[in-house]
Amino acid sequence: MTKEKMIIEIKEWLKEAAGYIRVSLTDELSVSQKSGRTDLVTNIDEETQTFLIKRINQYYPDDRILAEEKGFDTLDSLAGRVWIIDPIDGTMNFVMEQENFCIMIAVFEEGIGQLGFIYDVMKDELYWGGKGYGVFLNDQKLLQPKDTSLSEGLLGMNAYMYGKNIYSAGEIGHASMGIRVSGCAGVELIAMLKGNHIGYISNLSPWDYAAGLVLLDEFGFKYSNIEGKPLAFAKREYFLAATPTTYTEIQENFIQK
Amino acid sequence: MTKEKMIIEIKEWLKEAAGYIRVSLTDELSVSQKSGRTDLVTNIDEETQTFLIKRINQYYPDDRILAEEKGFDTLDSLAGRVWIIDPIDGTMNFVMEQENFCIMIAVFEEGIGQLGFIYDVMKDELYWGGKGYGVFLNDQKLLQPKDTSLSEGLLGMNAYMYGKNIYSAGEIGHASMGIRVSGCAGVELIAMLKGNHIGYISNLSPWDYAAGLVLLDEFGFKYSNIEGKPLAFAKREYFLAATPTTYTEIQENFIQK
Repeated sequence: MTKEKMIIEIKEWLKEAAGYIRVSLTDELSVSQKSGRTDLVTNIDEETQTFLIKRINQYYPDDRILAEEKGFDTLDSLAGRVWIIDPIDGTMNFVMEQENFCIMIAVFEEGIGQLGFIYDVMKDELYWGGKGYGVFLNDQKLLQPKDTSLSEGLLGMNAYMYGKNIYSAGEIGHASMGIRVSGCAGVELIAMLKGNHIGYISNLSPWDYAAGLVLLDEFGFKYSNIEGKPLAFAKREYFLAATPTTYTEIQENFIQK
Repeated sequence: MTKEKMIIEIKEWLKEAAGYIRVSLTDELSVSQKSGRTDLVTNIDEETQTFLIKRINQYYPDDRILAEEKGFDTLDSLAGRVWIIDPIDGTMNFVMEQENFCIMIAVFEEGIGQLGFIYDVMKDELYWGGKGYGVFLNDQKLLQPKDTSLSEGLLGMNAYMYGKNIYSAGEIGHASMGIRVSGCAGVELIAMLKGNHIGYISNLSPWDYAAGLVLLDEFGFKYSNIEGKPLAFAKREYFLAATPTTYTEIQENFIQK
């Protein structure tokens, strides 16, 4: 089975990349700004991406790649088999906290998510799975979280959207049990997969959500852009994912009203 | 030495309490509301407090106690030796996430902090120290974090204050590298002690900050109520703690301007 083989390979690459990242934390990082003062990239983001792309090219030379760092951040379509990669999701946390960041890899075929991997490097927790597999934390299969309503759970949130009440994010937050801001899409998506949070509202690029969507599908979570339209896998979009009940409440009571 | 003996005892009590809390997570929690729908208490908060108070009464019968749960939440003064306890700091996280909560214990003498303990139960990370000891993570002595400025670091924040721009909390957040919302004072104070965050703005009761202050003192952090006045160790207050440079910037550029 190609998929079985692929899972074993991707896990190996992730462990190798994580080992390199952990060692690199003892050195001085080279940090640069991208779009602005709070949008950072480091030499380790770039080196990790280069390593993963090299492995994909070596094992799957015909596949195409969409990835966060330079030269790989646009793709005209999701035709064929496409790898979507965020070498370090949560670069600000990587620089400031040396924790709460993830490596994320998704494998899509003809636009349909097949495999997803979210690796919390410092906790050594790999969330992975996909079509027909369910969701695993390392070797342990996870149970599907309850379909909790908005007033009953915590929401992962983008701080700016919450503060400026963009698409009623502030009001949605107040209707929940509280918001949490981790600064890392992977950490927020993991919190949903564990059943700790009921949803996540943010402003994301394809590599921030691709792996997560594959895993959210296995547990029946709902997601879209914040207006309820399919995610475009193109530029940054306002993003909503939640339990079915919470998703419907947010759409009906706050977005579409 | 009384203090040496006390440190050994408190560590034992914390480990015992944490063991009980971890086991309790496999049972159904009994959750009640206190002041409102998002202010929760569980049977485990109350049982943990009862256990800690029993130990203090047994070993130090003449000492006085200020603690979060019922019957112990007011004290007329800090005269003599006073124990300040939060049995579960971050009860919402305890209920919803089963992680990101702490046990906190402080020992004050005549109003002066002597010992502080912040125990992240699920990570099994005990931050402790006090006057003449410095700050330790488990058995490892921590180094004093850099005196970073506001524009260079992440700020722990109370979501409500940020969203409503209370005491310019929104503007202060925007002047930083970003805010983080964990929902647990202990987790935020730990982030400062590790040098991951440069400060913390919230709305806290004495048991939320007492242990933290003892440890912040060892590293030269500055703290006060948000208006720059000494914390009262009485009712809930707007709270600011930060590196010396960030503290001064926040006071001069946002609060006192």
